[in-house]
Amino acid sequence: MTEKCGVVGVSLDGRNAARPLYYGLYALQHRGQESAGIITHDGFQQHSHVDMGLVGDVFDEDDLDQLNGAAGIGHVRYPTAGSVDSSCAQPFSVSFKSGSLGLSHNGNLVNADEIRDELAGMGHAFTSDGDTEAIAHDLARNLLDADLVRAVKRTMQRIHGSYSLTIMHDDTVMGVRDPQGNRPLCIGKLEDGYILASESAAIDTLDGELVRDVRPGELVVLQEDGQGFDSYQLVELENTAHCFFEHVYFARPDSIIDDSLVYEVRRNLGRKLWEESGVESDVVMPVPDSGRAFASGYADAASETTPDGEERDEHDDGVEFAEGLMKNRYVGRTFIMPTQDERERAVRLKLNPIKSTVEGKTVTLIDDSIVRGTTSTQLVQLLKDCGAEEVHMRIGAPPIVAPCYMGIDMATRDELIAADKSVDEIAETIEADSLAYLSTDSVADVLESDRIDLCMGCVTGEYPYDIEGEETDRAVDRPAVGEGTIPADD
Amino acid sequence: MTEKCGVVGVSLDGRNAARPLYYGLYALQHRGQESAGIITHDGFQQHSHVDMGLVGDVFDEDDLDQLNGAAGIGHVRYPTAGSVDSSCAQPFSVSFKSGSLGLSHNGNLVNADEIRDELAGMGHAFTSDGDTEAIAHDLARNLLDADLVRAVKRTMQRIHGSYSLTIMHDDTVMGVRDPQGNRPLCIGKLEDGYILASESAAIDTLDGELVRDVRPGELVVLQEDGQGFDSYQLVELENTAHCFFEHVYFARPDSIIDDSLVYEVRRNLGRKLWEESGVESDVVMPVPDSGRAFASGYADAASETTPDGEERDEHDDGVEFAEGLMKNRYVGRTFIMPTQDERERAVRLKLNPIKSTVEGKTVTLIDDSIVRGTTSTQLVQLLKDCGAEEVHMRIGAPPIVAPCYMGIDMATRDELIAADKSVDEIAETIEADSLAYLSTDSVADVLESDRIDLCMGCVTGEYPYDIEGEETDRAVDRPAVGEGTIPADD
Amino acid sequence: MTEKCGVVGVSLDGRNAARPLYYGLYALQHRGQESAGIITHDGFQQHSHVDMGLVGDVFDEDDLDQLNGAAGIGHVRYPTAGSVDSSCAQPFSVSFKSGSLGLSHNGNLVNADEIRDELAGMGHAFTSDGDTEAIAHDLARNLLDADLVRAVKRTMQRIHGSYSLTIMHDDTVMGVRDPQGNRPLCIGKLEDGYILASESAAIDTLDGELVRDVRPGELVVLQEDGQGFDSYQLVELENTAHCFFEHVYFARPDSIIDDSLVYEVRRNLGRKLWEESGVESDVVMPVPDSGRAFASGYADAASETTPDGEERDEHDDGVEFAEGLMKNRYVGRTFIMPTQDERERAVRLKLNPIKSTVEGKTVTLIDDSIVRGTTSTQLVQLLKDCGAEEVHMRIGAPPIVAPCYMGIDMATRDELIAADKSVDEIAETIEADSLAYLSTDSVADVLESDRIDLCMGCVTGEYPYDIEGEETDRAVDRPAVGEGTIPADD
Amino acid sequence: MTEKCGVVGVSLDGRNAARPLYYGLYALQHRGQESAGIITHDGFQQHSHVDMGLVGDVFDEDDLDQLNGAAGIGHVRYPTAGSVDSSCAQPFSVSFKSGSLGLSHNGNLVNADEIRDELAGMGHAFTSDGDTEAIAHDLARNLLDADLVRAVKRTMQRIHGSYSLTIMHDDTVMGVRDPQGNRPLCIGKLEDGYILASESAAIDTLDGELVRDVRPGELVVLQEDGQGFDSYQLVELENTAHCFFEHVYFARPDSIIDDSLVYEVRRNLGRKLWEESGVESDVVMPVPDSGRAFASGYADAASETTPDGEERDEHDDGVEFAEGLMKNRYVGRTFIMPTQDERERAVRLKLNPIKSTVEGKTVTLIDDSIVRGTTSTQLVQLLKDCGAEEVHMRIGAPPIVAPCYMGIDMATRDELIAADKSVDEIAETIEADSLAYLSTDSVADVLESDRIDLCMGCVTGEYPYDIEGEETDRAVDRPAVGEGTIPADD
Repeated sequence: MTEKCGVVGVSLDGRNAARPLYYGLYALQHRGQESAGIITHDGFQQHSHVDMGLVGDVFDEDDLDQLNGAAGIGHVRYPTAGSVDSSCAQPFSVSFKSGSLGLSHNGNLVNADEIRDELAGMGHAFTSDGDTEAIAHDLARNLLDADLVRAVKRTMQRIHGSYSLTIMHDDTVMGVRDPQGNRPLCIGKLEDGYILASESAAIDTLDGELVRDVRPGELVVLQEDGQGFDSYQLVELENTAHCFFEHVYFARPDSIIDDSLVYEVRRNLGRKLWEESGVESDVVMPVPDSGRAFASGYADAASETTPDGEERDEHDDGVEFAEGLMKNRYVGRTFIMPTQDERERAVRLKLNPIKSTVEGKTVTLIDDSIVRGTTSTQLVQLLKDCGAEEVHMRIGAPPIVAPCYMGIDMATRDELIAADKSVDEIAETIEADSLAYLSTDSVADVLESDRIDLCMGCVTGEYPYDIEGEETDRAVDRPAVGEGTIPADD
Repeated sequence: MTEKCGVVGVSLDGRNAARPLYYGLYALQHRGQESAGIITHDGFQQHSHVDMGLVGDVFDEDDLDQLNGAAGIGHVRYPTAGSVDSSCAQPFSVSFKSGSLGLSHNGNLVNADEIRDELAGMGHAFTSDGDTEAIAHDLARNLLDADLVRAVKRTMQRIHGSYSLTIMHDDTVMGVRDPQGNRPLCIGKLEDGYILASESAAIDTLDGELVRDVRPGELVVLQEDGQGFDSYQLVELENTAHCFFEHVYFARPDSIIDDSLVYEVRRNLGRKLWEESGVESDVVMPVPDSGRAFASGYADAASETTPDGEERDEHDDGVEFAEGLMKNRYVGRTFIMPTQDERERAVRLKLNPIKSTVEGKTVTLIDDSIVRGTTSTQLVQLLKDCGAEEVHMRIGAPPIVAPCYMGIDMATRDELIAADKSVDEIAETIEADSLAYLSTDSVADVLESDRIDLCMGCVTGEYPYDIEGEETDRAVDRPAVGEGTIPADD
Repeated sequence: MTEKCGVVGVSLDGRNAARPLYYGLYALQHRGQESAGIITHDGFQQHSHVDMGLVGDVFDEDDLDQLNGAAGIGHVRYPTAGSVDSSCAQPFSVSFKSGSLGLSHNGNLVNADEIRDELAGMGHAFTSDGDTEAIAHDLARNLLDADLVRAVKRTMQRIHGSYSLTIMHDDTVMGVRDPQGNRPLCIGKLEDGYILASESAAIDTLDGELVRDVRPGELVVLQEDGQGFDSYQLVELENTAHCFFEHVYFARPDSIIDDSLVYEVRRNLGRKLWEESGVESDVVMPVPDSGRAFASGYADAASETTPDGEERDEHDDGVEFAEGLMKNRYVGRTFIMPTQDERERAVRLKLNPIKSTVEGKTVTLIDDSIVRGTTSTQLVQLLKDCGAEEVHMRIGAPPIVAPCYMGIDMATRDELIAADKSVDEIAETIEADSLAYLSTDSVADVLESDRIDLCMGCVTGEYPYDIEGEETDRAVDRPAVGEGTIPADD
Repeated sequence: MTEKCGVVGVSLDGRNAARPLYYGLYALQHRGQESAGIITHDGFQQHSHVDMGLVGDVFDEDDLDQLNGAAGIGHVRYPTAGSVDSSCAQPFSVSFKSGSLGLSHNGNLVNADEIRDELAGMGHAFTSDGDTEAIAHDLARNLLDADLVRAVKRTMQRIHGSYSLTIMHDDTVMGVRDPQGNRPLCIGKLEDGYILASESAAIDTLDGELVRDVRPGELVVLQEDGQGFDSYQLVELENTAHCFFEHVYFARPDSIIDDSLVYEVRRNLGRKLWEESGVESDVVMPVPDSGRAFASGYADAASETTPDGEERDEHDDGVEFAEGLMKNRYVGRTFIMPTQDERERAVRLKLNPIKSTVEGKTVTLIDDSIVRGTTSTQLVQLLKDCGAEEVHMRIGAPPIVAPCYMGIDMATRDELIAADKSVDEIAETIEADSLAYLSTDSVADVLESDRIDLCMGCVTGEYPYDIEGEETDRAVDRPAVGEGTIPADD
């Protein structure tokens, strides 16, 4: 049920929204390759095109032309296990008493079943088993006797968990970010309208300007003439729970999330990594492409100070940064897996070591994370086969010890190599000469955030949400139910 | 919104239902080529596979294997204008408080909007704009506080129009036919279970035995062990409204509908046609394949009596029956249309006249119906170009003067050649030397039915239902709302 | 290596040939469903589009638009075992010293290997193992030092077997039929040009007029301005060897082949069948669609005379003709085969008996031929299961006792039920109450042909060609090698 | 007619060659994405699978399973303008008097027409207009009266131009490299056999070991038992003409070509670029991925010396290397092009600048080459829009002033921005603040090669071959025709 997706919403002054949505989804393709969809509204009716596949395969010119209307939302969906069904593809849309409603959802509710049960008790019937349908039905029901803003507020008071939503009610496009701001969502200004998107890279792609992040608990309503947007801070909690893993792994390096450039964060995490656990070696190399920014920061720091923190003198060149593993960019979905005895080839088809960079050298290999440990084991082996004297592995994030319930489909606890192994044991398993991870404190430091304002559940096992069978790291914040005042700003 | 479809439902003693459903849908393919779908239930959960396309294209072996469970329903959908959207493909399924519900629907409600509005007022949100979702939601809601049979009864009291449904509630498979029996539905016995199907040909295909038609207003519940079925006569009206056009055009000739073999009915309509408006000619030929059974009956009658009803003497051979138009069976969907000046070729690619059968002859051409008149015009021209001296056209049904609201997507009134033209004017338009249609009385006669027990809306303009802007031919029967007793038989 | 295909060639006055070729191939689709192709020439260069699949799938509008030029040839290919390779798809085209050469071939050479070996000895290299490439290379070589007509003549003197060819040399379109005229080929006149086609139905489709059959041994060269054609009788043999099976089974009923309308031939074979082996029964029914014309002729004859040849009196209605087996027209290629225990269903999915026509009746079932006997066995069983009292089978052609070497891929001798069984034994095997085939004499009679002028190898085991390991039924005609005079007529 | 492709050939001891060939082609996918093919030989017959598309799309498990035999060759083909035709897909194979012959060709002959004309004069007919068919026919003809080695030698004496070939004669696999060694080809040792491949990365992928490059003019024959190979130096010329552009642009960075690691060469070219035309700036960034290795070498050199060649002191950090342009890896083939007014987006969809790296900075942008100049113009604009103070462009190769006739499909002379513009004019056109290319001398220097041993036609306009209308840079070497001795070594 976990979903790691990309969402977008656009409201323009007259021009059709379909093409900007299409290019926006293209820019967010890394957030989901399983399905893609766009729905638009032309003032009279909704148009929809949703299908399994990559953005470039799902839409052709005719599809875009038929998606009439200056308002629209879009979605790309991550391939999560067991959900190959097209009924889960989004945007999800329903018609109800007061018109049509479309939703694109990134995140994961922790009380979806509860809400579905309540709605079912009132006679609702569901066509999927997803969170999104629960939100849609709840919102539709609230809209029966409340205006748009109040209805969204009521829904936000009921649903608990992680959600960044773009919503289209008839031709009104909105964005909502959960009160803890777990998943990213930002606002951009286009030449002739406004855009909401999971990441600012989508705004860049459209030559737009990043206005700001949507705030945790905020509802942003795009004006229908594309001239501006209205903001409603519907829920306010003491602490946020931004997912640190967006910065480490998931987001594009060129996106700015919660005011930080992802690339810069990764470089700084790499610098910290050197400071915390630098090891002298002949060469520092990234696992491409995931480790590149980390390795670049690590190598920069290494050229300035020794592992002991001493400034290097002019005759000490420090560590050389080099690309020692070359990626075959053509290895894709339709690849025929090697037979058992050819299995080692799989990694070598994707990543090939450069002998001259590796042979006879001590190597530090930098990556962003280790999940199951399989690839790390293969890479260490590969480098040693290629003549590396030593292979030291440095990871730009803490060990992943627990699953993510907030929308990133990492793995089950059983599969996580760090769930029941110490760092030393992992080093032994992957046969690295040394292994170090970055500390959680350093992560918080780099993200200039209090530890309590991040969601680090996967590396601490303590979650900022009530999850059955798991610890929580805080007096769990849940929005109080009750009308309250609805402040409007901007 | 009109839907002319095929439905099927199967409950077996242990064996998976998917393959019988698949072959059943194959047998009903003529009732719908736009989409196909099967859902099954294995006692624990529902499995579903629904997609656009022909049965043979929609399913592969893996799909069938994954459709686990001894209970299931299936659907093929007719391509109606404007509904190329996959969201309309069926079976439609929802989960609700008391489990899962799947529906396959053939027919068309006349008060769907009314029901949707009521449900929307109660907070329901819809993912499609179809009748079927309205029925599903209403039924789900009724099941909140009523047992299965009562819930179906309540729903039948609310919905008005034409419907033959196969329903699956968890792993219980049911069939329902509207109180006027507009669309066909029948029960068959298989070796290890029971089947419900739009036409008996689906039962034949599975080497099953036709038990009987589902009665108008009856609910048939297949027993989960495949050992039998229970019948509940939930609604009883004075008159039925069987669609006569199923017999004339839509159903397979080898199906038995409401106790009549369709092929035999068509032959008899052909005989009547000779009796009513026979014309001596050198040769009688069908438009293949639609006119074949009619032509065969017409020619048989013609070999026995003269147009005046006199018995022929032994030296009068009467009219010769011959296949004078040959069909190219490969002309399909992916055909590149001829350019404007090649347009005549279109008909000739499909139907080619046999010169020796036509040249210098007077020809009677038999078909089941004339809708727009375009093809008839082309065929008369074709036969004349081929040397026919005279071309007389005889049609085995009355002129279509009004649209069908009950689920057959004929055409709008504007497009119907008979909507505002007399028979003579039509003859002139299509350039036939003479033209005659069969009378409504003869149709009723052949179907051994009172005129009031048939739906002949499309040929009379008077409908057995309340349709806004149209006449009705009866004090409209609607099931009285109120609990009443639920009789159980069989 | 055997190929049962359709060929076409067109030369127009200016207009592009691609679309007429496309519609022509559509009309010949029954002659080959494996691949389709068109090549055209615009005076400067050749254009080509050839692919696996049906005509409607192989070409789209763009493909046709790109096939520039007023001259062109086309081909549809029959799926013969083991040749799923696209390298065998035709037209086959080569460029050589004097320009380009394209060939579409229907038939089968008996000395292809001999010719290929000779050419290989001269250094030729081949890209396929087909007859057609051998012909193309031989012709290209002959064109090095001879004009077109002489070169074709030389090639005709070398190749032995069955061939109807359409050839395009640069933008000159030609047709050639082997000296024994085994496969059909005819000439048609279009509004603005001429066409060569395997069957006249292709000409009809284009609103053209059949001029005449290409004569055995004749070369027909279409004039490049579409104004006429030139004929060269290059080889003349005493006897022809027209394939009688084209008339019985392969050709479209609406085609005229060697001056006979196929439909009429089949009706007359049906009449003869009654005369030879008529049996009184309640009903006569065809196996659709292959037996329809035969059954119609059989029933007509049966209504006139008794099996003893007596004229019926007026109170004896004779035998009733009825369609007792209904065909499901949607059963296609992508059909999932039933499992072993569902196997009987396979025939019932395709053909469903009409109970009322069969039950309690004595039935005569008419078909054109029996190859393996599997389907016949299933049909007899089906009718008996349906309540037929007796099932008599009558076949409109003699028993197939030997393979075809001339281009019809029937089966190997092992698979032919009649290869080692008497008619009585076959009747027993298929469990028919009686079985009779038509005699070879009657076939010759109906085709108004001397027995020696037909190829009846598959029903006699004696062939009009030299085939290793088989008998021949004549002093084998082979064209004498030597220049001779080249007469020109027309 | 130019072809920039990848070739591979494998001979194993018993095991099927298909899978190693498949993975080898996967590793060479960057050399050709238009078509892919494999042919194998099992000792008795050839098996073939060739189709349009990427390796992963062309083959499925069944295809590989059916490609039986321990010997085989493969090919990937580059999409060159006007050759979308599947008839050009390779390996090309023919059967001829002495068996079968398959060829995979990388390169381009300059006298193909001459050879085709000669062969045509001897009666040969061709199915394509490619070089490869000319080579195949010539070789087949030579094999009529010469053994394999002599036949290859004769063919090598006739064909002139660039060619790296893998050849399969029956089940013997060979590799040939043209006497000037224009395109790469190397030999690798696998666990149970030998491999020939365009690049060593294909060998790495199979966990094999690079043995050495095939020498210019050498024929390498793999032993059929996979135990070794035999070498025949068939032609020896004074000078080679290795394509320098393979190193600069085309080959994978992790391949070793003519003893040099491509990645290292690019780093060194980058270093030279700094030395020749370094410019101080705040940041050095590559155009990803093509400029990355160059930029890394450039930045390394820049951190050591100033533009004047002075060693930097310890307080001068020199230039910072950073990734300032982020690539969207999902932009692929099926992308819908933006409309005219959205055109700028096209580059931004592919490459997005990182504001913090660029804004207010002086930037040096490094790439491997400039062809048309369109992308460079867009990138400079993009960086300036993003706030770059200055954009200096440095290119790791000399200006491309002339087309490639040897197999790399760059562009026509008209399209090359450097064909008629000085470096200053180009700088002005692309609006860069400064622009510098690397000198040809430095290229030769880095490649440790005499200028005369490289083919630098595209940057000098002087070619090492006789090309009509172009200058040559040497007394053109052509192998002398005449038997000579055939030395065997290894």
